[in-house]
Amino acid sequence: MEITRHAIVIGPDGEPLPLAPVISWAVTHGDVVHLSGITDNPVDPAPDVRSQTRRVLTRIDELLSEAGTSKSKLLTAQVWLADMDHLYDLNEEWNAWVDRENPPTRACVEARLVSPGLLVEVMVTAAK
Amino acid sequence: MEITRHAIVIGPDGEPLPLAPVISWAVTHGDVVHLSGITDNPVDPAPDVRSQTRRVLTRIDELLSEAGTSKSKLLTAQVWLADMDHLYDLNEEWNAWVDRENPPTRACVEARLVSPGLLVEVMVTAAK
Amino acid sequence: MEITRHAIVIGPDGEPLPLAPVISWAVTHGDVVHLSGITDNPVDPAPDVRSQTRRVLTRIDELLSEAGTSKSKLLTAQVWLADMDHLYDLNEEWNAWVDRENPPTRACVEARLVSPGLLVEVMVTAAK
Repeated sequence: MEITRHAIVIGPDGEPLPLAPVISWAVTHGDVVHLSGITDNPVDPAPDVRSQTRRVLTRIDELLSEAGTSKSKLLTAQVWLADMDHLYDLNEEWNAWVDRENPPTRACVEARLVSPGLLVEVMVTAAK
Repeated sequence: MEITRHAIVIGPDGEPLPLAPVISWAVTHGDVVHLSGITDNPVDPAPDVRSQTRRVLTRIDELLSEAGTSKSKLLTAQVWLADMDHLYDLNEEWNAWVDRENPPTRACVEARLVSPGLLVEVMVTAAK
Repeated sequence: MEITRHAIVIGPDGEPLPLAPVISWAVTHGDVVHLSGITDNPVDPAPDVRSQTRRVLTRIDELLSEAGTSKSKLLTAQVWLADMDHLYDLNEEWNAWVDRENPPTRACVEARLVSPGLLVEVMVTAAK
């Protein structure tokens, strides 16, 4: 099956960007789309978990759209919270966003994220 | 490929349940079954990791059965332990349960889970 | 679709090895290869994260090769660091290893790993 890589993080000269790993923000294989773990902007994150969650989910919508699919075809989601005390706020934003007739599976655990100001990270897969 | 969603967590009125995210406990896409991260009951968890693990694995058996497959067709497992000192106990219960001729891949790391009494969470995928 | 399990961790008598969970180091389903979370040797890990990362990535290359594929067909990667302060070193080793024209998606979070000396764990999927 065909593999398509979207939004590769690499410099214009083909060398890695400073401090950044070379990754694809999305990889499509056959009719499955895999997204990287999405966070808010690590150098200028929103101050609260609700705002960060909204930005993360909006970015996921964008990447799914670029890959030719949408949140209604989500298969799985992994969520990491920097502080599990933010679970209620996360879930409120999640429930406002998710397609209630077509929700993915989900796991949510606490973990320190790549940058101290980041409060939430979400990684999803979707069908096309 | 067809997507089938099993056991969607939603109120009878189509509104989210209080405090709960809208998720599917299982999603089948083609011949791959994805389960959500499974824990013991967060409002009345068993007091020890072995009992919780047995309940989690029994629930996984049930969800796989509802999706038309079984633990002999597991592909992958992710395990989160609230305390890595419980690894030995987890592995004993795992080894008593897993199909020794058909084990999945696995990763196991420590993480704080969604509710303080929860000691173990397991998320699997299986073929149909 | 066919399932092939590679390098099952089990004793020659069909009983689990002491202290070890029964897992497959790799499982192929159709044209997707799933690897277990790979760490350095838990009983004799290298003393620094760069050496451990190199060993982990070399082991991933070996397992992918045994399954009939290579890092150029990676789809996804999950990375766990025992200490997020090692992110820069991890990324340098990652960027020296990854196929820059064909990088996978990735998520990287901090987590305590199965053994205290382990600093990094990587779990990947690849197409065949």
